[in-house]
Amino acid sequence: MKRSFIREILEAIDEETISFAGGLPSQNLFPTSDLKEASLKILDNPKVYQYTISNGIEELREQIALRYTNEGFATTKENILITTGSQQAMYILAKFFENKDITIEEPSYLGAMNIFRLNNLKMDGVKLEDDGVNIEEFENSFKNRKLTYLIPDFQNPSATTYSSEKREAVCNIVKKYDGILIEDSPYSELFFEKKMPYISQAIPNNSFLLGSFSKTLVPSLRIGWIRADEEKIKSLLIIKESIDLHSCGISQYILAEYLKDNDKYERHLQVIRDDYKEKALYFSKQLNLILPEFKHQTPKGGMFLYGGFEDKKIDTFALVQECLKKKVVYVPANQFYIDKVPNSEIRFNYTHSSFKQIEEGLKLIKSCL
Amino acid sequence: MKRSFIREILEAIDEETISFAGGLPSQNLFPTSDLKEASLKILDNPKVYQYTISNGIEELREQIALRYTNEGFATTKENILITTGSQQAMYILAKFFENKDITIEEPSYLGAMNIFRLNNLKMDGVKLEDDGVNIEEFENSFKNRKLTYLIPDFQNPSATTYSSEKREAVCNIVKKYDGILIEDSPYSELFFEKKMPYISQAIPNNSFLLGSFSKTLVPSLRIGWIRADEEKIKSLLIIKESIDLHSCGISQYILAEYLKDNDKYERHLQVIRDDYKEKALYFSKQLNLILPEFKHQTPKGGMFLYGGFEDKKIDTFALVQECLKKKVVYVPANQFYIDKVPNSEIRFNYTHSSFKQIEEGLKLIKSCL
Repeated sequence: MKRSFIREILEAIDEETISFAGGLPSQNLFPTSDLKEASLKILDNPKVYQYTISNGIEELREQIALRYTNEGFATTKENILITTGSQQAMYILAKFFENKDITIEEPSYLGAMNIFRLNNLKMDGVKLEDDGVNIEEFENSFKNRKLTYLIPDFQNPSATTYSSEKREAVCNIVKKYDGILIEDSPYSELFFEKKMPYISQAIPNNSFLLGSFSKTLVPSLRIGWIRADEEKIKSLLIIKESIDLHSCGISQYILAEYLKDNDKYERHLQVIRDDYKEKALYFSKQLNLILPEFKHQTPKGGMFLYGGFEDKKIDTFALVQECLKKKVVYVPANQFYIDKVPNSEIRFNYTHSSFKQIEEGLKLIKSCL
Repeated sequence: MKRSFIREILEAIDEETISFAGGLPSQNLFPTSDLKEASLKILDNPKVYQYTISNGIEELREQIALRYTNEGFATTKENILITTGSQQAMYILAKFFENKDITIEEPSYLGAMNIFRLNNLKMDGVKLEDDGVNIEEFENSFKNRKLTYLIPDFQNPSATTYSSEKREAVCNIVKKYDGILIEDSPYSELFFEKKMPYISQAIPNNSFLLGSFSKTLVPSLRIGWIRADEEKIKSLLIIKESIDLHSCGISQYILAEYLKDNDKYERHLQVIRDDYKEKALYFSKQLNLILPEFKHQTPKGGMFLYGGFEDKKIDTFALVQECLKKKVVYVPANQFYIDKVPNSEIRFNYTHSSFKQIEEGLKLIKSCL
């Protein structure tokens, strides 16, 4: 197995490089003083430093469950398994479904695809359209596999948001074949206008819903979770405790303390949403000005902007090598396809760069064409 | 796969139960104020909250490497991969050696055995004697497998410490067949009298050496590591970054800050060594007084005391069910054998109980016989 292109790039580039490549949240927006304050309140207590149970500490699971319940998705702490980032959640599921066939979107999240390969899941790609997967293709693929991995909100890499109709259609197909949906939703809270209901909400016993604090709060706590029915959580727990016994206890206690004041988190979410929206609109505008030959949809949330050159002969994988020399980098979209077919598409991250860097970076790319 | 008996017990028992079961370090000895002080120094810095590289932060890898180098085992940061506890280190290796045959000690560490099963490694058990594995049996097993997992210092569960002769013999066999040793050493720093050299030290290119801060400092940081040659570390890194991208960043920065003052950590280690030694000797003495029919070796370090009843017909798995009713618990040793054969052996943890609880607990066990 090869390493992820993105991880390799993140290590190879220097501080002068303008990076549209990673999925790094904006460091300026981290609520460092609130997190420090929460830390101060818990770090005297010896129990915070001891082994914890593998499911995750009760206080944190309760708070996550409460957030779902308040949105109309009835959830208790028994439905939640804390994981070491959402990445581990995906790994646990890949291990659980080892050797199975799975339907995924194409393009899809690189980290998930690598894990599926590592655990020998055979992927079948279904074309992603502007409002979600092509439903006919999806049903054809799903009926033979009964297992799918989808990212309905502000998808990584494509920034696609599923329409209500497509959410309902996917839901009906999962029910019809009594299959399983893995719904990955690290970006759901990062909407610019409105939040859509989770697909899992209508099929709570046929779904695993993944969440994370990495994109909404800070990544280094390494806290994500899986929401599923209690029996499924018990099965996953066996794998979780084999992999790392439990996720970082200190992170869990800091988070639980921070979340006690729910308004604080809500205010913080609003700050990121406003900031990311402004950045997304600016990025989109600059693209239209500087690279009008690059066609894209303006994102409705999340961290990415996706599109392709009108001239389909442009190979963005070849182009990025040139861009690297000029100190600008993005992720060429061939990485997000099962067979890594060359194409003219690009995923841009817009959250990690300043307005000035966005303009400069796009001009540098233009100069490489 | 079933859940670990120990994890199930830890969840099932209540606060009144005297537990000799877990591997919990003594909470009273956690250097909470020093860890809080280190935290305060780093928690204002936004970079501490961002994604880090998968290998682990440079400062921490350097400090771990330096400790080995100071002991005469030349090591650089490139030889170190930070993991989410030593448990994840083992998982990564089990994934790396998926489907292979492996020689292990019998009895052996339950967490490792579960991971090997989960990743389809076929285990062959070699009898553990008072000074390490039976060398003839070991060579017979190893020559066909070329892969072994050993815990030479204060083994879990048996508390066995390998003699210099057996360390050398194992080392020669690994070299002779150009095989691989996985040397697990979470307890090496918890010696009562002296530290023995790692077996890996003599075969640095044929070994993976595992370390952890969970037993020597605090478990909830979830920081362990693998020491190996640079090429091996690169191979493992691909698996590591698939599982959780990286270990908790905040934990890593707290640790790196705490370890800057090396004397502080050394003083802390001396405190635990002295305390654990006193507890071990007391536990051993009380066993001789209260349960003279239970034969055991006094441990030379670590956290466990191991032995068996003279009356081999006593099934300690059946006995523990009775003990649970009387609110005392230990781990019956059948758990530590590949085929879970019934036997009269027990693993006691002595670090988590008070002197009073040790005496009371042993009397309760006596009353169940």
